[in-house]
Amino acid sequence: MRCEVLAIGTELLLGQIVDTNSAWIGERLAEHGIDTVEHVKIGDNEDRIVAALERLLAGADAVIVCGGLGPTPDDVTRECIATVMGRARDGLDHLGRLDHAVSSSTPAPLVRDERIVEHIAGMFAARGRDFPANNLRQADVPEGAAVLWNPIGTAPGLKCPIGPPDTFEQRQKVVYAVPGVPYEMTRMITEQVLPDLLDRMGERAVIVSRTLKTWGASESGLAEMIDARVQAQSNPTIAFLARGIEGICIRMTAKAPSAEEADALIEPEEATLRALVGDLVFAVDDETMEHTVLDLCRKRGWTLAVAESVTGGLVASRICSVPGASEVFRGGVVSYATDVKRSVLGVQAPEVVSAQCAREMADNVRRVLGADVGISTTGVAGPDPLDGHPVGTVWMGLAIPGVPLEAVSTRLPGDRDRIRQFSSISVLNLLRMRLLALGHS
Amino acid sequence: MRCEVLAIGTELLLGQIVDTNSAWIGERLAEHGIDTVEHVKIGDNEDRIVAALERLLAGADAVIVCGGLGPTPDDVTRECIATVMGRARDGLDHLGRLDHAVSSSTPAPLVRDERIVEHIAGMFAARGRDFPANNLRQADVPEGAAVLWNPIGTAPGLKCPIGPPDTFEQRQKVVYAVPGVPYEMTRMITEQVLPDLLDRMGERAVIVSRTLKTWGASESGLAEMIDARVQAQSNPTIAFLARGIEGICIRMTAKAPSAEEADALIEPEEATLRALVGDLVFAVDDETMEHTVLDLCRKRGWTLAVAESVTGGLVASRICSVPGASEVFRGGVVSYATDVKRSVLGVQAPEVVSAQCAREMADNVRRVLGADVGISTTGVAGPDPLDGHPVGTVWMGLAIPGVPLEAVSTRLPGDRDRIRQFSSISVLNLLRMRLLALGHS
Repeated sequence: MRCEVLAIGTELLLGQIVDTNSAWIGERLAEHGIDTVEHVKIGDNEDRIVAALERLLAGADAVIVCGGLGPTPDDVTRECIATVMGRARDGLDHLGRLDHAVSSSTPAPLVRDERIVEHIAGMFAARGRDFPANNLRQADVPEGAAVLWNPIGTAPGLKCPIGPPDTFEQRQKVVYAVPGVPYEMTRMITEQVLPDLLDRMGERAVIVSRTLKTWGASESGLAEMIDARVQAQSNPTIAFLARGIEGICIRMTAKAPSAEEADALIEPEEATLRALVGDLVFAVDDETMEHTVLDLCRKRGWTLAVAESVTGGLVASRICSVPGASEVFRGGVVSYATDVKRSVLGVQAPEVVSAQCAREMADNVRRVLGADVGISTTGVAGPDPLDGHPVGTVWMGLAIPGVPLEAVSTRLPGDRDRIRQFSSISVLNLLRMRLLALGHS
Repeated sequence: MRCEVLAIGTELLLGQIVDTNSAWIGERLAEHGIDTVEHVKIGDNEDRIVAALERLLAGADAVIVCGGLGPTPDDVTRECIATVMGRARDGLDHLGRLDHAVSSSTPAPLVRDERIVEHIAGMFAARGRDFPANNLRQADVPEGAAVLWNPIGTAPGLKCPIGPPDTFEQRQKVVYAVPGVPYEMTRMITEQVLPDLLDRMGERAVIVSRTLKTWGASESGLAEMIDARVQAQSNPTIAFLARGIEGICIRMTAKAPSAEEADALIEPEEATLRALVGDLVFAVDDETMEHTVLDLCRKRGWTLAVAESVTGGLVASRICSVPGASEVFRGGVVSYATDVKRSVLGVQAPEVVSAQCAREMADNVRRVLGADVGISTTGVAGPDPLDGHPVGTVWMGLAIPGVPLEAVSTRLPGDRDRIRQFSSISVLNLLRMRLLALGHS
């Protein structure tokens, strides 16, 4: 089963709105073992929409059209689908391909559905607003199409069979039209479109993905480490996803009759990959570096404090993004001005971009905030060098019970923002590595 | 001039990454008067990428391909473009359409560019990392293509003429390949692709945009304020851009023979709009709320300190994102744990989610860090209520010389992240309004 996605709206092409719908739909399709190989954005132009629909239908079993169901004149999705239905009615060859030679040029007639009129009228009444005549267009349904009810919006969806009426239901292609409003779309896809697609599938395969998030190796370096597995991949498949400052992900995707069987395929692959890349893996799926660090501290009953200069609060804000961080996280000091490092954190180091300064910040912030573990960042985010240190020079301090006070330096690429972001995840990863090195508590 | 966008990456179809690149590129193209009528997402599949490229090229003058330039085996953009170049070399008819009957099937040979090898080696060296053999692929350039240098990443871009070598430069179609990493892509498009596209355009009109960033009014509220101007718009045009937690933007776009003339068209419109919306405008174009706040403090020779609970370092990190912040910004205290509010900031308030706590945090952080101005945030980001206060309850404190100590409460919608983000920009905007109210220093 293959299903493509067509997002409609000139505002999407002009970048006034980012199309997040097709990504969301693509994820749902993949989860359900439905292939999707092309997503397209088209403006509010009838000819182009019809052409895109017919092209996508030629290669797929189904197309989900997002948007263009509104009441204004530039909403033409209904009319476009009616045209495609009409042309396909007697224009599908035995392979289900559109054959323009024999296709008719009469669109399927649009028939007003009084139940939809009532529904829309009810929604306007509920908001105490008049029912604009424009909205009647939303009650027009191409002959032969079924209505996908929209309990939370005025625009109903459509399920439109494409091809001769006598085609077997299972062989017939289909176009689903859903609203562009995300929360209306997601509900309609989940409750009505996906179940219908699964009914049409012969096979009921389940797709399960698991993502190993890594930090510390380049994409190509990682690729070399697990090259043998990548070469040998079949089910699960193995893919790389570069996530910029969030590191590089290795994604395993398995296809099986059930989620349990898919998991059973992933488990041994994950074990093998972890054996190859070791501690580079800092989190799985939706977990983040800060989740992992907080968990490692929590396991030891340790609290955490941060002293930040170059990162200016980014490390603290990442940690606070985790619900329940307060169990472990005491707080932080953003000692941006040099004399604040001295007055608040009692830093003695003559130079602020130095190992000694990083060590003192990490060590003393523990005392100031009453924490077991302290980490720190100090360095040069640019745009200009500082005290003769080039932009990108960063020192990270670590104060951990039972471990010698430590400072690690790194040299980061990129602009001011990248350097601050990289420094933040780097110091968190450094703490993660040190806590792992302590072994199990 | 018509330019389409092709985003490459299976992860985009599977929804693991949302394609924001094509929307950004579409916005730039529109600003420069370049038409764009179709954006496509395709997975890492050579045949499909080649087919999509040739189809889009048939209807357009240029195609921008995003992504697939990485070092791993699934990055095949280079190879695909080489195939299209080869097929088109002797396969373009007089209209510049691909004519498969006469197109050759030999791809343009990929030639390794030693300057790129040096560049990549340099980047790995700067990070003290080994240069993996895989990355050499990134130095391969299709014969006849020009390199778009990437000063901030390993993947260079490509400018690939499509068609017979003797075609007039202006008539020849072109494929631009740019990295999928947003910050590398945006810089390459701005500095190298857009100027080249403008060179190719017959008309050399200049498009100048100016964006007024507002905070504090809804899009519809703003639309009502400036409705008369929107109705009367011609050149410059006026558009609204909702930027979520960064507020709502009003963008003026003028077209003229020169930048000076375009500016001359924008100046009076900006003056009229500012008169209508007043202090809602907090910044222009790339300026941010934190730029504005730092400038207002600098003008008075005041330094700034922040005390954060609910925002957990976000306010400080926003302020530190501004180059030169150190002139004004002293630093901050992230007093996440209640007893840190008391021990470090000397908070007496019995309740931490209260006006008194917000006032004491703002007032005392000035003393602790030796600053003139202090601001603070305390509240409930969720997921659970705190001390009987519902999620979204936030108090903001303001301590400004010559102004009574103040606390303002707000009730914010959304999840944990949105509440923290909204709180951060809200307290900065509150400080901006108070400093403006003091009049000119």
